Amino acid sequence: MTTLFGYFRSSAAYRVRIALNLKGLDYDQVPVNLVKSEQRGGDHLARNPQGLVPSLVLDDSTVVNQSLAICEYLDEVYPMPALLPVNALARARVRALAQLVACDIHPLNNLRVLKYLVGELGTDETAKLAWYRHWVTEGFAALETTLATDPSSGDFCHGNTPTLADICLIPQVYNAERFECDLAAYPTIQRIAAHCRSLPAFTKAAPEVQPDAG
Amino acid sequence: MTTLFGYFRSSAAYRVRIALNLKGLDYDQVPVNLVKSEQRGGDHLARNPQGLVPSLVLDDSTVVNQSLAICEYLDEVYPMPALLPVNALARARVRALAQLVACDIHPLNNLRVLKYLVGELGTDETAKLAWYRHWVTEGFAALETTLATDPSSGDFCHGNTPTLADICLIPQVYNAERFECDLAAYPTIQRIAAHCRSLPAFTKAAPEVQPDAG
Repeated sequence: MTTLFGYFRSSAAYRVRIALNLKGLDYDQVPVNLVKSEQRGGDHLARNPQGLVPSLVLDDSTVVNQSLAICEYLDEVYPMPALLPVNALARARVRALAQLVACDIHPLNNLRVLKYLVGELGTDETAKLAWYRHWVTEGFAALETTLATDPSSGDFCHGNTPTLADICLIPQVYNAERFECDLAAYPTIQRIAAHCRSLPAFTKAAPEVQPDAG
Repeated sequence: MTTLFGYFRSSAAYRVRIALNLKGLDYDQVPVNLVKSEQRGGDHLARNPQGLVPSLVLDDSTVVNQSLAICEYLDEVYPMPALLPVNALARARVRALAQLVACDIHPLNNLRVLKYLVGELGTDETAKLAWYRHWVTEGFAALETTLATDPSSGDFCHGNTPTLADICLIPQVYNAERFECDLAAYPTIQRIAAHCRSLPAFTKAAPEVQPDAG
């Protein structure tokens, strides 16, 4: 059985859960508690030298790391339903939307970075929250403009089926809400998020229903 | 003619220059001066609502954003020489190596983040450099382990032809050197970087030979 090593609140693990669910694949989950620094233990480092989650371990023990690489791998091995459109320009659009979140928002706001701000730079709670919200605002403002002005947007970020872009967006919206970011300025993001959250592949991937949810 | 809107020192623009060169494609360059905040001007925001570089503008004025999405687009439209292997697991490995740099090192160290540290958090020069080097160390230590222990590594990050992983690695090495990070602990990264830097596709993409190099 395919095994996902993740953490219920990790955006990156959440992405992979959505992808696995959209593909209709069964998988076991093994929690790696980031708050307890289990990702720094030898067992996990052997499969993920970065000490990050998620890692997907296949039946034959092969490890696939990095959430976007895992999603693209799943899409190549299990092509239907597709997580990317067929047309090259449309694929580029979906990947760019996914990367806006996965390269330009999430890396700045994940737990290891917030820990560094507080522990090494002595950032207080107010400044930490301002940091978090700043990068969400920067990214979501641009994403809202892109989604609201491009006719390729539909019920989902691209057209009327879920893609890699939605897989990245929903965990980011979840975490933005957790940090009480004001999302009122992003009606298109909110509309798409509400639609995704009506679907079992997304609801079953939500942090609060994972086995390690505290 | 395809036009790349970039900046000579931007890692993300540097990646796209390498990819265009590897594909043997001609392109015009229009500099967007990040130090002068030209990326926040209306002209650039119209093509890139995030106010980031690079943007690739095609002959028919279509805009493609996000460096990894641009590279994958080029690889799909101009398949040879390939920037990704054929096998799905090998493709996942290359994408994961690329994303280790593009999602877990570079986003923390680019100019807008360093500006926020100094301007908003009052971080001094010493702490800013420590921040920069911390994320390079975190990422490169894991990358070195992965490259040095996996027999799939070759003259390049994956095998004996350049891939998306090398396209991401070389700009990161360049910027790590610029910030005087100690790379002695990463002999495999250094070996691969030296090999890449012997090739015209990489040397022609180097920041110091770009039209906007100051």
